[in-house]
Amino acid sequence: MLPAPRPLIVAAAVICFCLGSALLPSLAEGKVHHHTWNISYVHKSRDCFEKLAVTVNGEAPGPTIRATQGDTIVVTVHNKLETENTAIHWHGIRQIDTPWADGVAGVTQCPIHPGETFTYRFVVDRAGTYLYHAHYGMQRVAGLNGMIVVSVPDGFVEPFTYDKQHTVLLEDWWHKSVYDQATGLSAKPLVFVGEPQSLLINGRGIFNCSKPVPATGTCNTSSPDCGLRSLFTVVPGKTYLLRIGSLTSLSSLSFEIEGHSLTVVEADGHYVRPFVVRNLFIYSGETYSVLVKADQDPRRNYWATSHIVGRNPTTPSGKAIVSYAGNDPQMTPPTAPTTGPPWNNTAIRVEQSRAIVAHPGYVVPAPARADRTLILLNTQNNIDGHIKWTINGVSLHFPATPYLVSMKHGLTAAYDQRPPLDSYDLMGYNISAPAPTNGTIGSPVYRLAFDSVVDVVLQNSNMLDNRRETHPWHLHGHDFWVLGHGDGKFNPAADAWRLLNVKDAIMKNTVPLHPDGWTAIRFHANNPGVWLFHCHVEAHVFMGMGVVFEEGVDRVRRLPSSIMGCGHSKGLH
Amino acid sequence: MLPAPRPLIVAAAVICFCLGSALLPSLAEGKVHHHTWNISYVHKSRDCFEKLAVTVNGEAPGPTIRATQGDTIVVTVHNKLETENTAIHWHGIRQIDTPWADGVAGVTQCPIHPGETFTYRFVVDRAGTYLYHAHYGMQRVAGLNGMIVVSVPDGFVEPFTYDKQHTVLLEDWWHKSVYDQATGLSAKPLVFVGEPQSLLINGRGIFNCSKPVPATGTCNTSSPDCGLRSLFTVVPGKTYLLRIGSLTSLSSLSFEIEGHSLTVVEADGHYVRPFVVRNLFIYSGETYSVLVKADQDPRRNYWATSHIVGRNPTTPSGKAIVSYAGNDPQMTPPTAPTTGPPWNNTAIRVEQSRAIVAHPGYVVPAPARADRTLILLNTQNNIDGHIKWTINGVSLHFPATPYLVSMKHGLTAAYDQRPPLDSYDLMGYNISAPAPTNGTIGSPVYRLAFDSVVDVVLQNSNMLDNRRETHPWHLHGHDFWVLGHGDGKFNPAADAWRLLNVKDAIMKNTVPLHPDGWTAIRFHANNPGVWLFHCHVEAHVFMGMGVVFEEGVDRVRRLPSSIMGCGHSKGLH
Repeated sequence: MLPAPRPLIVAAAVICFCLGSALLPSLAEGKVHHHTWNISYVHKSRDCFEKLAVTVNGEAPGPTIRATQGDTIVVTVHNKLETENTAIHWHGIRQIDTPWADGVAGVTQCPIHPGETFTYRFVVDRAGTYLYHAHYGMQRVAGLNGMIVVSVPDGFVEPFTYDKQHTVLLEDWWHKSVYDQATGLSAKPLVFVGEPQSLLINGRGIFNCSKPVPATGTCNTSSPDCGLRSLFTVVPGKTYLLRIGSLTSLSSLSFEIEGHSLTVVEADGHYVRPFVVRNLFIYSGETYSVLVKADQDPRRNYWATSHIVGRNPTTPSGKAIVSYAGNDPQMTPPTAPTTGPPWNNTAIRVEQSRAIVAHPGYVVPAPARADRTLILLNTQNNIDGHIKWTINGVSLHFPATPYLVSMKHGLTAAYDQRPPLDSYDLMGYNISAPAPTNGTIGSPVYRLAFDSVVDVVLQNSNMLDNRRETHPWHLHGHDFWVLGHGDGKFNPAADAWRLLNVKDAIMKNTVPLHPDGWTAIRFHANNPGVWLFHCHVEAHVFMGMGVVFEEGVDRVRRLPSSIMGCGHSKGLH
Repeated sequence: MLPAPRPLIVAAAVICFCLGSALLPSLAEGKVHHHTWNISYVHKSRDCFEKLAVTVNGEAPGPTIRATQGDTIVVTVHNKLETENTAIHWHGIRQIDTPWADGVAGVTQCPIHPGETFTYRFVVDRAGTYLYHAHYGMQRVAGLNGMIVVSVPDGFVEPFTYDKQHTVLLEDWWHKSVYDQATGLSAKPLVFVGEPQSLLINGRGIFNCSKPVPATGTCNTSSPDCGLRSLFTVVPGKTYLLRIGSLTSLSSLSFEIEGHSLTVVEADGHYVRPFVVRNLFIYSGETYSVLVKADQDPRRNYWATSHIVGRNPTTPSGKAIVSYAGNDPQMTPPTAPTTGPPWNNTAIRVEQSRAIVAHPGYVVPAPARADRTLILLNTQNNIDGHIKWTINGVSLHFPATPYLVSMKHGLTAAYDQRPPLDSYDLMGYNISAPAPTNGTIGSPVYRLAFDSVVDVVLQNSNMLDNRRETHPWHLHGHDFWVLGHGDGKFNPAADAWRLLNVKDAIMKNTVPLHPDGWTAIRFHANNPGVWLFHCHVEAHVFMGMGVVFEEGVDRVRRLPSSIMGCGHSKGLH
């Protein structure tokens, strides 16, 4: 969704950052949006069950950040968590020239201490739908998240029209605390987080409080925070743009609005060749814009629902109401809530993934070939009795000193110097059988030649119990071209390359890796900094499912001292 | 309990620290004891109800540190809490020449980040019974605590004899998390932490699992961590030294061993003129050594119990068994557990406080008069809808930059420059009525002339709801002489000074301030550093009930960079 040619926008963003706002009359007349956020624990009843949530100004999800392409966002974060640090990632914002503002504790900054104030300042250089969330331990699971909506500049005409727009944020929600979950994942033997208690739509859910209450707190069905409500009201004949984002911690979802078609027009900030679905599959970290026309019987209301797919669900569907104007907005639809597609039909999900290609008028041409190819196999490994995810044998452990600081300042003791492997035992490894190999826990980094083109083939494999999972992978600091989704094992020696789409590949920042398959992406390593690439399932990245890319760190400007103070960076200015 | 004259020991400690151990043949031949601690969350069933505890190497309480006077303790702390910082205070250790090792986040160090390692190194310069615990937010409530036993040097003869010694650590325990508790205390309106679910003796308690379970987790009556057990076994006719410490978060306690007299011989590391009690009143942060003779019918076992006093208790008594050799150690005593003294009989508690004076052979003479007197009134105040404790109108807020760093390095923006008041409106304030005054939240500091003698009169007053509480006050970095406990309002113009005991005042580091009364102490401000003085009730200090003393910070040696990295100290070496 890049109206102007990219290099120009990059230049504008850079100049805008350096010189401040409103100094450049035509190129960078972006506004500066100031936000002040207090991050604190508050007792919330998001699904009627009261538990502690990490909130932004008392709310979970936090406020939607709204801006226009080229604007600057300044968020002043006051950490009021008493004993817990925080860091906030601006998901999908590439942080061009501001790699220290990416908000990943251990990669781009030291976490923000309780009692401290940290200021994030970055340019939203491209219109689209983005997200934000805590990026520290599993803190995101506690509720610190929200959406970012970046509008196109005045005068820019989008390849579709609509009458009004709404945001739809999808989450899953546990009654156990983050500490409980993380302690279980670190335990011998591992105690998995289990299925969520509820699915939330725009922060609201409905827990069946007549069940025996399994966790702390009380169940409060009369709380104004929870229960069935109207998501929005439509006027017959009008068309609505829904900006849908998923920040689930675990669940892959299917979203639908009963009886209404959804026309997908945007994915992760890029225009899609429009296609129509009854239900939208959406993975954690993804955003989609869909058009929905109010073309059904206006005398009744309709269900908006989210359903778990890819895992055998025990969680009730997320439910809200889409009301037609004139009706009581809270009037329950006369039909039973939609139940969604079969959870274990992988084929229809892969099909939808393959349908997502660039809008013909907005193709960003992919480079014809890559300078380097990484083939990244995920396996579950038992390392000293701990179950970990590894990528080519290494389970990522975030170092105490952020990579960006240690690599920029030559603190070589702060991370593993031995580079990780570019591939795995392609011939020998059976992706349909649990890993027989041992893995290691470490904090290595892939050093990428600056300005090079990199292909990454993500290769899925079965877990130790031989189940198969979907892994949505998210790349920081970049969009990538999605070259293809394949079945089984990627075989570079065979004709797998022929299957890849370089003609009209969509650009995204998050892409699913489907069970028993592979996903190939290509990106341009031209954003100086250090960037995380990881599975967006919170438990998976906590268990090590990620890698780190460095590119042109020598080109990064002087780092702000506000990102330092931890690990080996205590003494640095 | 200072066998050698103090100046000599100080010199020994200093030299010992500077040159390392075992270099000085006679003066400082102390050993160096190395401990490596992993601090992590673990699911524990301390009272049979499973909840997360912050543990040392998987245990709560942590291991007892044992050393001999003059030894050096080195504790290497690995913070494995994922998103939560920590800091550990060595309660009762004066940290002579090592003020940065006192372990108070916000006062003497930046908290230790997850993933980081911090090394505490200090000399235990005086024999006695001491404690350790987390000193960061309310983290102590989560279980990170334990005991320190420092033995007299070889050849030193104590003023009592015994056959064997045991440690007894008393705690109270909540099923709600620290986060839940802290969030309630910070809320508008305040939600108090409530009474504990259990009292623990040496980490074990017994929750009535047949009650409706009010909090997270499961109740597991068969857990080996909980239930009724023998505390220790005695041999008829033998005498035992019990080193008893209280690290309750809220509760004042009475401890007794059914049918056995307790002879109090040590308090906070100082020999007491022995006195005999049936039950020992002990306040959070205090330690006592008592002698108990196995002089009862050896054919049965006896109850060891702890009971809440000072607050109307709803918590069952803490219970354990003292077994006589030859019996089944787990054999339940034939009698009903002892129920302790009436919770609201303040007079008998004041009486016991007054009975604690120095052993005649070990009086450390108090200076005859003070150079400065502080009269510190505690009141509850409503500050912008938050209920806070204030001292002379100021509710202490720990700054993001530790005082020790900011004061040593002249970072004047890091704390309040306006000094707090030395006294309050002595004539106008009615201590039996709730505070009509407004307070402020701040981080000021009392700057004390180095080597001066300071008197502090702690003045209690009723709470906003007109109830009266006991506040055990703990001074870091010093012992103080307990000059007296008085009723009502301390009146410096009248003859209150005459009532004070300078003849054989006991030295302590923690002393109760009783309801409707005052407590006067005297100390020598001769330990360069910055030191916290606060109510040891965790909820109270969290609500601001503390003050900070600085003395001779210019004499403190170069600070280790390991204590820096937060707030204004990010850029310091």
